[in-house]
Amino acid sequence: MKTENDPFPQAQEIAQRVRSGEWRAAEVVQETLRHIHASNGEINAFTGITETRALREAAAVDRKVARGEDPGPLAGVPFAVKNLFDLQGEITLAGSKINQQDAPAATDATAVRRMTEAGAIMLGALNMGEYAYDFTGENIHYGPSRNPHDRLRMTGGSSGGSAAAVAGGMVPIALGSDTNGSIRVPSSLCGIFGLKPTYGRLSRAGAFPFCPSLDHVGPLARSVADLALAYDAMQGTDAADPVCANRPNELVSGLLAEGIGDLNIAVVGGYFAQQATPAAEQALARVAAALQVSEQIEIPGTAQARAAAYLITNAESSNLHLNRLRHHAADYDPDVRDRMLAGTLLPASWSIQAQRFRHWYQAEVLKVFARYDLLLAPATPMSAPAIGQRTMELDGEQMLVRPHLGLYTQPLSFIGLPVVVVPVASTGAMPIGVQIVAAPWQEAKALKVARQLELHGFTSPIPTR
Amino acid sequence: MKTENDPFPQAQEIAQRVRSGEWRAAEVVQETLRHIHASNGEINAFTGITETRALREAAAVDRKVARGEDPGPLAGVPFAVKNLFDLQGEITLAGSKINQQDAPAATDATAVRRMTEAGAIMLGALNMGEYAYDFTGENIHYGPSRNPHDRLRMTGGSSGGSAAAVAGGMVPIALGSDTNGSIRVPSSLCGIFGLKPTYGRLSRAGAFPFCPSLDHVGPLARSVADLALAYDAMQGTDAADPVCANRPNELVSGLLAEGIGDLNIAVVGGYFAQQATPAAEQALARVAAALQVSEQIEIPGTAQARAAAYLITNAESSNLHLNRLRHHAADYDPDVRDRMLAGTLLPASWSIQAQRFRHWYQAEVLKVFARYDLLLAPATPMSAPAIGQRTMELDGEQMLVRPHLGLYTQPLSFIGLPVVVVPVASTGAMPIGVQIVAAPWQEAKALKVARQLELHGFTSPIPTR
Repeated sequence: MKTENDPFPQAQEIAQRVRSGEWRAAEVVQETLRHIHASNGEINAFTGITETRALREAAAVDRKVARGEDPGPLAGVPFAVKNLFDLQGEITLAGSKINQQDAPAATDATAVRRMTEAGAIMLGALNMGEYAYDFTGENIHYGPSRNPHDRLRMTGGSSGGSAAAVAGGMVPIALGSDTNGSIRVPSSLCGIFGLKPTYGRLSRAGAFPFCPSLDHVGPLARSVADLALAYDAMQGTDAADPVCANRPNELVSGLLAEGIGDLNIAVVGGYFAQQATPAAEQALARVAAALQVSEQIEIPGTAQARAAAYLITNAESSNLHLNRLRHHAADYDPDVRDRMLAGTLLPASWSIQAQRFRHWYQAEVLKVFARYDLLLAPATPMSAPAIGQRTMELDGEQMLVRPHLGLYTQPLSFIGLPVVVVPVASTGAMPIGVQIVAAPWQEAKALKVARQLELHGFTSPIPTR
Repeated sequence: MKTENDPFPQAQEIAQRVRSGEWRAAEVVQETLRHIHASNGEINAFTGITETRALREAAAVDRKVARGEDPGPLAGVPFAVKNLFDLQGEITLAGSKINQQDAPAATDATAVRRMTEAGAIMLGALNMGEYAYDFTGENIHYGPSRNPHDRLRMTGGSSGGSAAAVAGGMVPIALGSDTNGSIRVPSSLCGIFGLKPTYGRLSRAGAFPFCPSLDHVGPLARSVADLALAYDAMQGTDAADPVCANRPNELVSGLLAEGIGDLNIAVVGGYFAQQATPAAEQALARVAAALQVSEQIEIPGTAQARAAAYLITNAESSNLHLNRLRHHAADYDPDVRDRMLAGTLLPASWSIQAQRFRHWYQAEVLKVFARYDLLLAPATPMSAPAIGQRTMELDGEQMLVRPHLGLYTQPLSFIGLPVVVVPVASTGAMPIGVQIVAAPWQEAKALKVARQLELHGFTSPIPTR
């Protein structure tokens, strides 16, 4: 089950071979389980492996194939999810110790159910930063997830286990969530593709909330085709998530082979050019060169947009956590608890002001998208820091790692824009990602350009060890 | 220009006669100005009379009629607006002393412009509670507006001048705004019809904001036909008010002659039956009897909905007023200043919790509207209190007048429902209103039923003095 030059088969190939009967889903799952058991001790991506469920689901797929029924576009494809997604019969940890006392989930999260209905096989729950309030992938209760490209380095977070499981070849697809960058930061640091769709595109029902007005869910994968397969499987409105907008689905998998046509693309400078390390600058320059993009624009108010995203995150999340803070304050990671307690003290006027600014900034950015189809920006200011590293030097200044890895992702999710992260690999260096940013509901454009970049050689690097 | 039994011609009649050439708009305006000058000293409805503008606009209408051009459905109809609507060249007071320092408005508010484009004639700006944070119609800077049915009694507020001008026959139509009841409370206390449309139906651009997530604008009039004429003239999306939803217009004037068909109507009891005085109870019973409605339902969570509306009002308004509070605190009405200062100290978590509750309550109420077309509720717990009265007895308890006149209006605007207030008059007693409440975007149903009630004798009483 290995393909030439790549020890880890991707979702597209697995589904094709399972659907044709060439591979059996049960064998795919058994090999996947072997690989997970062999490498998870070092990578610490999984916090729970749903072996029984995976074998049962694989058998069901194989029966369908044997009977000549359609097993779905993701037939036999192993996937796993950040442990904030509900899995029927499992406790939804959301990276915390406190949630260990919760009852097991009664049903799967909508995103999980839709993946499963498309034939994908649930392998388990993945490590994450506590309650998603994190950009490092470290976790005081469950240990840090480790970067498959250098196990002494961070995965990035908060969907750290999701990125590590994919980059390490344990599963071809993982689901994560992204409030301020939690899919994009670990995708960048682990050298994989990640999609944060438009706010409201994919249902968040059954995903443990962090900050409702900013929360998104999305897939991480090692190819654009796999991202698109997962994205397509999860689309569709959902009454259980009121913000999951009543938009028609836009299935992208079939569109990737199309050319990108005549798109107007610009690099976002200004705020997005400040504080970048040479690694981030060079990655962006390489992507821009491959797309023959030379124009550079700026978006006014971006520093304030990030500040406003911080405020709203802090205010909304601490409101959701009030009862837990009252009764279980000692069981939080102190870094998360301090943020949450500060959030409970914010004045309403600040969060309302931040929401008002949000409307202003969104209008400014939409004016930019009247002229450009896509914008290019770095995904993180640097490649993966060492696990335990508290500060990093950006633009000659020592900055805290934990908040500032999201420097470039936060202002974009703030207004719900769809973003694809594309990995940029260099021999002898850690990978780093570039954000392909589209106007609301234009995921397809970003994915098509990401596919073009893949053809130009911007592919997910294979861990050398 | 008087019709039998009614000394004040209504908009429908004026427009018909001006359009046919029977009356000249200039004569209508001159007679209107005479009446305003004669009675405003006692009623204190107008804070500014736009005489020059009115005469110019009337002459323009008359020229159109003379040339055989269409002068619009409101041709020659005098109207006036709460002094928070921008009028080109006038200072928008919003009931305050502080705004006297503002520059005159460069253009009309959208609602004013649309009325004028329909042929209506702008007569002036109307008294209101300071910054709309009021249910009494009293104003420390400009004096109280006085109830035409008893000049020692309140008009209700905050659109007190609007209701007084209409009830007193100074103009057939006035515009007001309603955040928590500011159209409905004065309509009830002054015995006229008032429409608070669905949140997002009419543009608020150019209306001085109070609480953006709750602010509505709408008309007050002495007949349903006049309400509908004004409502129709103001409909239409407006890029200048982002929440003015992209809904198709629904012109109602032509539909009023239709029967109401087979509508399911219920009286809302529970919260809406508590604290009502006998006058409010009897008015509701009379309307229910006329419509042959016997069913009574309850809406859970309504007391909490009112509390949440309070919180959101307090938080959003104090955010908008921050700069004024910093620099002009001494120039506020102390009652308004105290509320505003308290609002600046609210925790973000409270206002976020209130917004979360709002979604829950809206869903609960929409379940009710799956079974009923319209709901009936009292508009105010009592008829007009005396000017200066601070407390009133409700259900055996002394309650503050200023906040509690909005007891029954606040929970409904909280979730943006359209409401028509219908006046109920009794010989020898002050009038009082009943709310006809529809599901979102169903203004037409409420207006048709209000029209039926008018045919049953529920008409706007004429002041006896």
